[in-house]
Amino acid sequence: MATPEPTESPQPPRHQTPEEFRAAGHATVDWLADYLAGVADRPVTPGIAPGDVRALLPDRVPEAGEPFEALLDDVDQVVAPALTHWQHPGFYGYFPCNSSPPAVLGELLSAGLGTQGMLWSTGPACTELEIHVLDWLVDLCGLPDRFRSDGPGGGVIQDSASSATLCAILAARDRAGGAPAIANLVAYTSTEAHSSVEKGVRIAGFEAGQLRAVAADADHAMDPVALAEAVAADRAAGLVPCIVVATVGSTSSGAVDPLPAIAEVAAEAGAWLHVDAAWAGSAAVCPEHRHLLEGLDRADSYCFNPHKWLLTNFDCTAFYLADRAPLLDSLSILPEYLRNAASDAGEVVDFRDWQVPLGRRFRSLKLWFVLRSYGVEGLQAHIRHHVAAAGALAERVAAHPRLELAAPPSLALVCLRHVDGDDATEALLAAVNATGEAFLTHTRLHDRYVLRVAVGGTWTTAGHVERLGDLLDAHA
Amino acid sequence: MATPEPTESPQPPRHQTPEEFRAAGHATVDWLADYLAGVADRPVTPGIAPGDVRALLPDRVPEAGEPFEALLDDVDQVVAPALTHWQHPGFYGYFPCNSSPPAVLGELLSAGLGTQGMLWSTGPACTELEIHVLDWLVDLCGLPDRFRSDGPGGGVIQDSASSATLCAILAARDRAGGAPAIANLVAYTSTEAHSSVEKGVRIAGFEAGQLRAVAADADHAMDPVALAEAVAADRAAGLVPCIVVATVGSTSSGAVDPLPAIAEVAAEAGAWLHVDAAWAGSAAVCPEHRHLLEGLDRADSYCFNPHKWLLTNFDCTAFYLADRAPLLDSLSILPEYLRNAASDAGEVVDFRDWQVPLGRRFRSLKLWFVLRSYGVEGLQAHIRHHVAAAGALAERVAAHPRLELAAPPSLALVCLRHVDGDDATEALLAAVNATGEAFLTHTRLHDRYVLRVAVGGTWTTAGHVERLGDLLDAHA
Repeated sequence: MATPEPTESPQPPRHQTPEEFRAAGHATVDWLADYLAGVADRPVTPGIAPGDVRALLPDRVPEAGEPFEALLDDVDQVVAPALTHWQHPGFYGYFPCNSSPPAVLGELLSAGLGTQGMLWSTGPACTELEIHVLDWLVDLCGLPDRFRSDGPGGGVIQDSASSATLCAILAARDRAGGAPAIANLVAYTSTEAHSSVEKGVRIAGFEAGQLRAVAADADHAMDPVALAEAVAADRAAGLVPCIVVATVGSTSSGAVDPLPAIAEVAAEAGAWLHVDAAWAGSAAVCPEHRHLLEGLDRADSYCFNPHKWLLTNFDCTAFYLADRAPLLDSLSILPEYLRNAASDAGEVVDFRDWQVPLGRRFRSLKLWFVLRSYGVEGLQAHIRHHVAAAGALAERVAAHPRLELAAPPSLALVCLRHVDGDDATEALLAAVNATGEAFLTHTRLHDRYVLRVAVGGTWTTAGHVERLGDLLDAHA
Repeated sequence: MATPEPTESPQPPRHQTPEEFRAAGHATVDWLADYLAGVADRPVTPGIAPGDVRALLPDRVPEAGEPFEALLDDVDQVVAPALTHWQHPGFYGYFPCNSSPPAVLGELLSAGLGTQGMLWSTGPACTELEIHVLDWLVDLCGLPDRFRSDGPGGGVIQDSASSATLCAILAARDRAGGAPAIANLVAYTSTEAHSSVEKGVRIAGFEAGQLRAVAADADHAMDPVALAEAVAADRAAGLVPCIVVATVGSTSSGAVDPLPAIAEVAAEAGAWLHVDAAWAGSAAVCPEHRHLLEGLDRADSYCFNPHKWLLTNFDCTAFYLADRAPLLDSLSILPEYLRNAASDAGEVVDFRDWQVPLGRRFRSLKLWFVLRSYGVEGLQAHIRHHVAAAGALAERVAAHPRLELAAPPSLALVCLRHVDGDDATEALLAAVNATGEAFLTHTRLHDRYVLRVAVGGTWTTAGHVERLGDLLDAHA
């Protein structure tokens, strides 16, 4: 390709004018409103093969710009038919990933404002609103006061629980001596913990053998006696217990590790206690579920994901620290080009030092919108409706001649299997998913193949869950 | 607080209906269109003190939900007046963080669809569109073919260059022996490199002393002779060169490290070469700027940020690998609950293994919208217009009796200072920023206080930059 000479006075590109943006924005909102109104009529998962989407796309960026209508047409014709519809009321896979109208519009505003929240000074309202709504969540969920921003601790929004867990591991690692000490450090979690714990310790420079997978009990919760034994053995061998990651609401079955007993072991060993309640934590908006967090007042850090089950778009993980100093010690670096009067005066919070990336979006806006749009009553109704619907499904499974519960139901998660064994359970999954009306995923518990029904989609009602019960019945 | 009894048949929360969402969405789009039309009339930075925003917010989540109008009113009255306006045409601080109408609407659709792109199967179009547009960028920017998805390499969208650099460090660390070998590994970057390099190696478990800050030349580019000497000394001491991070377009002054000579040293030492062109990389849409990337065909990984200077909303870092295997070796963990037929068959890309978090938004949608809306011509015009405007400002500074260039102008970045010294330069910064018409930030070069003018805002034209020249003249 010949190198063109730049012209003498290059002209700026033609941008959409604010009036064109207004028209394109209205068209996009209309498309989304129609999508939401009709998503229940689509199959939850698309019947496509790898490469099908790319085959529809041109090989290169067009030379000249295209009109907005062409883009929206392709979203309608190429993209939407090739998606797994996470906002479909029949989506019960993995854990839900909640979206809601106010959250979507909060995200729109965040994008339109285009503010960077890396420093207080680069977007004061961005930082202050984040601090404020994370304090709101402490009240809303009955979390320990030590997580409030007016003491040595405080909360911050991370993109995911994986990143929050990584931050906890880094703070714990460096509090225990940092890089020179790594080889002697040990981390503990249960066999049922999320894969992000293993990923986090690997990123932090631990060897695979430095993470102990502590045995779980029959109901898949960490056995605190086994934890204490592992800690004692390691200390006897001259190793240093660095961090214990406990889970409230495990991914496979919603198991809840016994925090009070675990906290006792961690405290005695001088280890950091991080509690991962990514999914289950949202249930704490209801006082009747707060017993799941008993013992949290002894944790060094905690996270849960409003983007899973609290109507707030991904990404929005609420991460709390009892003492923010160790994390800031791990992640603060101050180059000259980021210095500013407010930071130098020590009067402000600069969230860049609380996370891996430097830049950050204005994520508190969508959470603020959700909390105010639904109010305490609406948020509690959201959780209670799903817990009741899952409870009804669990009763139906327990009474079914060819189905059985594979674990105690936990909040709105029901694990089940076919009485005829793994092949029958796997066939049931395939049959239910093939209807297009519902989508389940699987796990293994006690080495048996198990179906998970994670009730919690924004648009999922008790009626949808009853219909799922019918489908399970018909195909079992 | 007394624990309320949950009702027998909990009702679902009242959601906005699709028609209510339509109305609220239109109102939000209208507010944003008005914001964009008027942002140039606001002061770039707000005149507020720490705590001013929080003082306006109620202490708790409301019991009952609030109407959408109340939320939008507070955005207008409480939030917008307390922001630094990154999309203001007079914003020249840090590096630009581009937003554009099509990118904002792509982000809106991503939020509304609420798809998770962690696996191909959880959103096939999400994964395939991402692969496709990252291949598009290879052509658009004249990048080496080794970064295409049809060979052993490929591209992925990360949230930030910090995260991309961390991924490169992890892959390099583990390729060089992983955790057991860390104590013998050494990383290299220049004294002018971004702070994310130091942050990344600390996260990966290196001690501070294992990162060599290689000397830069008079123009702030890494000195490859100094690099070779440092590598030789380390090898003689029995240490293992693990990774070299080179910079194309440094944060302070836009300096460009000499990639061919650096690649030679890295290759000879068996070290990974990562090239960070976070800001400058967007300029490669213009053939006349591709010489900056000479030598990139020998890099193991590369990143640049369409969210800085290519009209695409944060977060959107394009991260490329010549060989994806080492990164996947570092970050892949496969729990049962994520297994699926497509992944098991090895037919698909699962981007969760290419990044720290598990979950991921549908970020390629906004990039696809931008590339198609502007086309090659529009993207080149965007870059060329800013480079020419910065060039004109640089000429004016060079000819000014009381101002001088503090470094060679680089693309659209101009570094300048007052001839009377640091105090005068600092006073000039304060005076220009106090006008509210423009916003600059500073750095230090050769230990002198320097003002940076980073031209590149979406709405910044040559006329705006000329006006900045007038302001500098008036206050110098």
